[in-house]
Amino acid sequence: MNINEFLERGEDYYLPNLSIDLVIIGLHDEKLKCLLLQLGDKWLLPGGYIGQDESVENAVQRALVERTGLETPHMKFLAVFGDKDRQFGDELKNLSTKFGPSWRDGYWLNNRFVSLTYYSLVNFENSHPVARGFDAYAWFCFDELPEMWMDLKSIALKARNRLREDIKYEHVAFKLLPDQFTMPELHHLHEVILEEKLDRSRFQKKMLSAGIFERLPKRLKESPGRNPYQYSIKTHLF
Amino acid sequence: MNINEFLERGEDYYLPNLSIDLVIIGLHDEKLKCLLLQLGDKWLLPGGYIGQDESVENAVQRALVERTGLETPHMKFLAVFGDKDRQFGDELKNLSTKFGPSWRDGYWLNNRFVSLTYYSLVNFENSHPVARGFDAYAWFCFDELPEMWMDLKSIALKARNRLREDIKYEHVAFKLLPDQFTMPELHHLHEVILEEKLDRSRFQKKMLSAGIFERLPKRLKESPGRNPYQYSIKTHLF
Repeated sequence: MNINEFLERGEDYYLPNLSIDLVIIGLHDEKLKCLLLQLGDKWLLPGGYIGQDESVENAVQRALVERTGLETPHMKFLAVFGDKDRQFGDELKNLSTKFGPSWRDGYWLNNRFVSLTYYSLVNFENSHPVARGFDAYAWFCFDELPEMWMDLKSIALKARNRLREDIKYEHVAFKLLPDQFTMPELHHLHEVILEEKLDRSRFQKKMLSAGIFERLPKRLKESPGRNPYQYSIKTHLF
Repeated sequence: MNINEFLERGEDYYLPNLSIDLVIIGLHDEKLKCLLLQLGDKWLLPGGYIGQDESVENAVQRALVERTGLETPHMKFLAVFGDKDRQFGDELKNLSTKFGPSWRDGYWLNNRFVSLTYYSLVNFENSHPVARGFDAYAWFCFDELPEMWMDLKSIALKARNRLREDIKYEHVAFKLLPDQFTMPELHHLHEVILEEKLDRSRFQKKMLSAGIFERLPKRLKESPGRNPYQYSIKTHLF
């Protein structure tokens, strides 16, 4: 569906009052960052709507591809955001030049939306998002999020907090790293996510005892010094 | 809203295409049971719809009270059930004598619904549900669920499975017991949920080390034999 058809006739295609918002998390410059799209002066999470003849699961994958060009394997459910006043409101109206002739009373994009939110961890270097139909995309540090529409900032922050909880119980953080990584890299990543120091040798022992990482040959190096083993996740996990 | 108004004019009050289903879990006769409502020949989870001017959170509590009379403190989010063909279908039409004059083409209750599902653990003895607007209510063992509408059986079973996961990480199972319980009772409950034997002394040691249970005086007994301490959950948890 092109952008004009979406703006003009979206209500014929999508379930009303129900939206999807996606928090895409990457690691860049030793910081956790979140992928946002610009709409007017403010920013949005990538997201979309659910086709009347489409499963929610399918809509999530489609929205991800349509809005970002990414094809992350797995979006994880985050939460339902269901406040009664979740709508763009007058500020969207002020963007009506952008929406061209679409804006009108009861315009479908200005309805109340209950949002189903999901999040995903991606490898920043392998992710090449595009800003389809939007002014721009950018990655923002969670501590320096720009002004965002509606309650989207709290959705983004909830995902960051969920990630902090998840890594206590699940091995997921490695998804933020390249396919091959060292234990010092994994250790540092956990410190970044948790925002606290972790004892390096205890961390490494715990990770290796899980039996899910496969040791690979050391990286070829030209300079002297420490040269830790590379690891990858064992494929049978997937 | 009375039942006739609900059937006739619900679409004027509720968000379309979005429903709530609640899995209420209790412990009875040493088995985990699920509270269901009868509609025609089949059974439903208690549930409801979200008012156009109502938050999802409020709708969940309201639906619980309206459909069961229970006022459980906390419903926990379970999952989104969003298959594209989630609707009652012709079978609901066959119940149209029950719906009186309401049934018609495009009747709102026969739309596709994305369901937001929640679950809760209740103390069976303190729970006195009512079947407001339905033929009957009953508690069913998860292993002997009756025929249910749509995919509601898989929602119920997902909640049972989630509970099994949750108790590995969180102290929640005690909510199924009376306010005061013994460690043997808590131990047996965990065996029922996990469907496996757990070493009694290791279990008790682990539970007490969590520091969330408060030891109370022993129960007065008339007969001789074992007389374990009573415990309750420490109130500062709430």
